[in-house]
Amino acid sequence: MPKLRVSAFTISLDGFGAGPDQSLKNPLGVGGETLHPWMVPTRTFQSMFGNDGETGVDDDFARASMEGVGAWIMGRNMFAHSRGPWTEDGWKGWWGENPVYHCPVFVLTHHARAPIEMQGGTTFHFVTDGIHAALDRAKAAAGPKDVRVGGGAATVRQYLAAGLVDEMHLVVSPVLLGRGERLFDGTDLASQGFKVARTTATAKATHYVLRKAA
Amino acid sequence: MPKLRVSAFTISLDGFGAGPDQSLKNPLGVGGETLHPWMVPTRTFQSMFGNDGETGVDDDFARASMEGVGAWIMGRNMFAHSRGPWTEDGWKGWWGENPVYHCPVFVLTHHARAPIEMQGGTTFHFVTDGIHAALDRAKAAAGPKDVRVGGGAATVRQYLAAGLVDEMHLVVSPVLLGRGERLFDGTDLASQGFKVARTTATAKATHYVLRKAA
Repeated sequence: MPKLRVSAFTISLDGFGAGPDQSLKNPLGVGGETLHPWMVPTRTFQSMFGNDGETGVDDDFARASMEGVGAWIMGRNMFAHSRGPWTEDGWKGWWGENPVYHCPVFVLTHHARAPIEMQGGTTFHFVTDGIHAALDRAKAAAGPKDVRVGGGAATVRQYLAAGLVDEMHLVVSPVLLGRGERLFDGTDLASQGFKVARTTATAKATHYVLRKAA
Repeated sequence: MPKLRVSAFTISLDGFGAGPDQSLKNPLGVGGETLHPWMVPTRTFQSMFGNDGETGVDDDFARASMEGVGAWIMGRNMFAHSRGPWTEDGWKGWWGENPVYHCPVFVLTHHARAPIEMQGGTTFHFVTDGIHAALDRAKAAAGPKDVRVGGGAATVRQYLAAGLVDEMHLVVSPVLLGRGERLFDGTDLASQGFKVARTTATAKATHYVLRKAA
């Protein structure tokens, strides 16, 4: 069965999935880049820029997070630094002309917009009728593959709160952000039957795989 | 310099320091006992019951948490399952006639009560005039040693929010509690200058030592 997955989603020790005050300069919020030292050196991440990179457990998780995904869902704030009605600013996401997704990406927004077809198989679709509609469209697009909810924290939280997520790979980085978006606010994963199925620590972070008890 | 320390304080992956619905039967709240598999088998913990126990990193942290402590502070709910005005129920804490503290313990409460002197050097003092008064008394009692804030989460949070804690040893257990008392709610450790100084993962939990930047 295809799953709705959250993968390689990193939080700080104090539970934040992004820092405060997100902006063009700080797309992950102030301090948010300190969440990702486990990810950035990996071969999976570096290969997006044509570089070599490190292999090992962190890379295994990074690579697995990209495999078997037939469609993505993300929040407007993950797609763009702008807010409110779309303007003709030419923005096509943070990821260049050939984005890393290589499949349909459904962007949750309150403001309608025509799809944007990129190189390499990525098309950004803009969904204005809510998380269930986005999930329906993503599942149809993904076929036998999984749908991955990318982020940010607010978007993941909405899918969690609605009980729609089947599996999560969470990463805790050993940093404190203090302010920002808390992943677990208003969610109760235990009551949804989630258990920690696997814990793997590396020198840079601790990885947790959460699954619902069968 | 003597420090105000939080040590061996365990939270779930979703940030709870205790489960919901604390009671005589569930002093750590429902599911709260699932926080402590790293601690219970240790030699430090088992020796309190005259048993042998496991050595290793988890035990090193458990032992260190008890060393160099000249006074404790804890919340009423850590001392007793009862709430409201004290009754003549003979309750003297969860820890038997010879409690594990072996030094003065200052219990935060809204209800005055005479001190209780136990065997082995532990005396429970009941402090009704707030966290600063309790800290002053604990520091005076501890002399050159540290003061340890035991718990629960609400008490630790008060000392954190007031910026009074100098060092924390936090432990994240790979469990989800879903509800209960969140340790980090309403605190911003980053703005207080706390950094993760050390991260050590064991098979059962990940330990974090947090210190304020000098």
